[in-house]
Amino acid sequence: MYTDMTKAVYAILIAFIFNVILCPVTIPFLRRLKFGQNVRDDGPQSHLVKAGTPTMGGIMIILSMVFASLFFLKGNYDGCIVIFMTLGYGIIGFIDDYIKVVKKRSLGLRAWQKIVLQLIVTAVFIYYIRTQTTIGSEIYVPFMHGFTIDLGFLYIPFVICVVLGTVNGVNLTDGLDGLASGVTVLVTLFFMFAAYGAASGVLPIAGAAAGSLLGFLLFNSYPAKVFMGDTGSLALGGFIAAIAVMFKMPLFLIIVGIIYVCESLSVILQVGYFKLTHGKRIFKMAPIHHHFEQCGYRETKVVAIFYIVTAVAVLIGYLAAQGLF
Amino acid sequence: MYTDMTKAVYAILIAFIFNVILCPVTIPFLRRLKFGQNVRDDGPQSHLVKAGTPTMGGIMIILSMVFASLFFLKGNYDGCIVIFMTLGYGIIGFIDDYIKVVKKRSLGLRAWQKIVLQLIVTAVFIYYIRTQTTIGSEIYVPFMHGFTIDLGFLYIPFVICVVLGTVNGVNLTDGLDGLASGVTVLVTLFFMFAAYGAASGVLPIAGAAAGSLLGFLLFNSYPAKVFMGDTGSLALGGFIAAIAVMFKMPLFLIIVGIIYVCESLSVILQVGYFKLTHGKRIFKMAPIHHHFEQCGYRETKVVAIFYIVTAVAVLIGYLAAQGLF
Repeated sequence: MYTDMTKAVYAILIAFIFNVILCPVTIPFLRRLKFGQNVRDDGPQSHLVKAGTPTMGGIMIILSMVFASLFFLKGNYDGCIVIFMTLGYGIIGFIDDYIKVVKKRSLGLRAWQKIVLQLIVTAVFIYYIRTQTTIGSEIYVPFMHGFTIDLGFLYIPFVICVVLGTVNGVNLTDGLDGLASGVTVLVTLFFMFAAYGAASGVLPIAGAAAGSLLGFLLFNSYPAKVFMGDTGSLALGGFIAAIAVMFKMPLFLIIVGIIYVCESLSVILQVGYFKLTHGKRIFKMAPIHHHFEQCGYRETKVVAIFYIVTAVAVLIGYLAAQGLF
Repeated sequence: MYTDMTKAVYAILIAFIFNVILCPVTIPFLRRLKFGQNVRDDGPQSHLVKAGTPTMGGIMIILSMVFASLFFLKGNYDGCIVIFMTLGYGIIGFIDDYIKVVKKRSLGLRAWQKIVLQLIVTAVFIYYIRTQTTIGSEIYVPFMHGFTIDLGFLYIPFVICVVLGTVNGVNLTDGLDGLASGVTVLVTLFFMFAAYGAASGVLPIAGAAAGSLLGFLLFNSYPAKVFMGDTGSLALGGFIAAIAVMFKMPLFLIIVGIIYVCESLSVILQVGYFKLTHGKRIFKMAPIHHHFEQCGYRETKVVAIFYIVTAVAVLIGYLAAQGLF
C-alpha cells in the first residue's frame, strides 16, 4: 500500500520527467509561432534583452501537472476540483496571452472580461466546496493548534478574495527568471507537508504541480529559455488558492505566500501613493522585485533572496500549522 | 512538549537569523584581512573577475551552526559528536585556507598533513560510534525497506572511505557561487526528513546546519559576496558524512549526494584518462561544473540544474528510505 506522501512523491517524479521531455520539444515550437513576449517597455532597461524569449510556457506546466495527476484521480473528486481550478485559470491566462501575443493587442483581455471569467471559475469551485465537502465555512487560525473560526455567510466573499488575491499575487511575482515558479514550488511543498497527516486526495495533485514546476525551472531559471506567461501564473494562482482553501488554510497563505503578498502590496501602495501625491513614488519601480533591481541587486540575487525568504516563511508556516492535523 | 522536528525547525530559524546578522558584519572584516581567495588560474577565464571576493566564509557557517546547536546539546551526545566532526574538519579546512591566503603559499597544507589530520578526527568519530552507540557495524540498504547489512570488520575502513570521500566531494563541488551551500541544504533536509520517525538528537543539529547555510546563501549566491573556502566545504563534508553514518544511511549518500559523487568521479576520470592516454581529456574541464560552463551554460544555469538534480535525487532517496524508521 502506498501512503499519500509516497503517491505525492511519485507524482512529483512523473510530472518532472514528463516536463523535462516536453519543454525542449515545445520551446522551439512556441518560438516559431512568434509567441515571444513583448517585454513591458516600462520595466527595467536590463530586461529588454529578454525580448524574443518565448512565453506561454504555462502550457507545459499545466500539461505535465495534468498528465501526472491522471494516475491519481480515480474516485478523487477533491483532486479533480483542484485540477479544475488550475485548468480554468490557466485557460483564462491562455486567452489573455493569445490575444496579446498572436493578435499583437498589447493589453490582452479587458479587465471586466477577465474578472467575469475568474468569477465563473471560482463560483464552480465554491459550489463544490459547499456541497461536496465537509469544509463548510471553516478556516484554521495560524499558531492556534487547530483552532478554527467559522466565517458563516462571509465565507463565500472571503474565498473569492483569497482566490483573486492569490492569482493576482502570483501573476505579479512572475517578473524575473525563475521567480514565480521557484517560489510556488516551495509554497506547494509547504501545503504537501503541512497536510501530511490529513489523508487527502489533494496531496498527489500538489506533488504533480511541484514536479512539473521543478522540470520547468530547468528552462525557466536565469537565463530563461521560456517564460510561463499569464497561462502559467494564473494557473498556478488558481492551483495554490484551491489547495489552501481545501486544507482550510487560506490564512496560511499570508505567511508562506509572503512574496505574493509583498508583490501585490508594493503595486497597491505605489499606485495609491502616486495618485494621492499626484506623482510621487514609494518604490523606484513596482512590483517590488524591480525595485530591488533598480537598487543595484542583480536579477539572480533578487530571485535567490525571494527563494530564501519563502523557505524561511515555509518553516514559520510549519510552526504555525502545529496541531492542525 | 516539542517534537524533534519542531526543535529542528527552531534550530533552522535560530541559525538562519544568527548568520544573517553575522555575515554582513564579518564579510568586510574578511576582506580587510586580505582573505580574498586567489581564484585558480587553471579555472575558466570568466571566473577571474571573482578574484578579491573574500573567502573563509565557512567560519560564519560553523559559528551559526554551533550557536544554534547549543540550545539542543544538553545530554545530547549524538549531537555533540556531529558538532565535533563539523568543527574538526572545519579547523583542518581553516588551517589550509589560512596558509593559502595569509601566508600566500598557494597550495596550503601538504597532502600527507591533511590526510593525517583527517584520519585523527575520523578515528575519534569511529571510536564514539563503536563504543557509545548501538549502531554497531550496520548500514541500511536503499530500497530494501529497512534491511540492513552488517559490515563486520570492514565497517571501520568503510566509514573512513565514506568520510574522506564525502569531504572530498563537497570540497570539489564548491566551485560555483552558491553551489556547495545550496546542494548541501537539500542533502541536509533529506536526512532530517528521512530520519523524522527516528527520535534523534541529530535532528536539531541538522536543522542548525540547514539554517546556517540558508543564511549564508543570501551572500554566497550569484554574484557571491563571500566564498566558504575549505573551512566551509571541509566542515560541511565532515558534517554530512557524520549524520549519514549516525542514521546508518551512508549508502544513501550515493543517491542524494549524486552531485558530490559526479564531481569527484569527473576529476578521477579526467586525471586517470589524461595519464593513461598521455594528454587526452574526457571533459573540457574538471570538476564537471566547469565542463558545463565550457559547453556554454552560464554559471547560474549550472547551479540551478545541479540544485534541481539534487532535489529529484532527494525524492528518490525518500522512496529508497521507505520503511526504514
